[in-house]
Amino acid sequence: MATVVNMAGFGFSCLSQPVRGVRRGAVIVRAEAEGVAINPAIRKSEEKVVDSVVVAELSKPLTAYCRCWRSGTFPLCDGSHVKHNKATGDNVGPLLLKKQKE
Amino acid sequence: MATVVNMAGFGFSCLSQPVRGVRRGAVIVRAEAEGVAINPAIRKSEEKVVDSVVVAELSKPLTAYCRCWRSGTFPLCDGSHVKHNKATGDNVGPLLLKKQKE
Repeated sequence: MATVVNMAGFGFSCLSQPVRGVRRGAVIVRAEAEGVAINPAIRKSEEKVVDSVVVAELSKPLTAYCRCWRSGTFPLCDGSHVKHNKATGDNVGPLLLKKQKE
Repeated sequence: MATVVNMAGFGFSCLSQPVRGVRRGAVIVRAEAEGVAINPAIRKSEEKVVDSVVVAELSKPLTAYCRCWRSGTFPLCDGSHVKHNKATGDNVGPLLLKKQKE
């Protein structure tokens, strides 16, 4: 039977029923995002990554801002959330700034 | 000596040198955010959480939008990133929408 180590604070859950295809005694860790950093690499030298936008200076009718912390054009969205969601089963998406109501 | 299980795809790293204060043979998992979902609970029934803001309708000079996926007032920021950063060593912060340049 496979057992998961419940790492307090890391937000990993405990799973003790048999898991198909996993050898006896294997350790499985099911990571849930609760206690895990969400920004792997963006501006890690900064204590807190805060961006501001002067909305009067927006040039396009619609500008998408990243909220998945994987964009190559951060703080702007470059669609990286699609790959992230697919790889992790997450459902994050951008913040869209619209100059006018449609 | 303590060894970390390197779980391919989960973004956990391999750490095989001795770790102070950890009993021999202990399993340590150092979670890095690469392969982990970042939104634990916000609108999980939605396939992708996208929010849009008509900037002409912003009421306050400054409005903070959440990027840590922990705010109780999502999509608006309620400061939850402070607790998240402290608990995980992360450095995420909000997107600030300013009506005018300062």
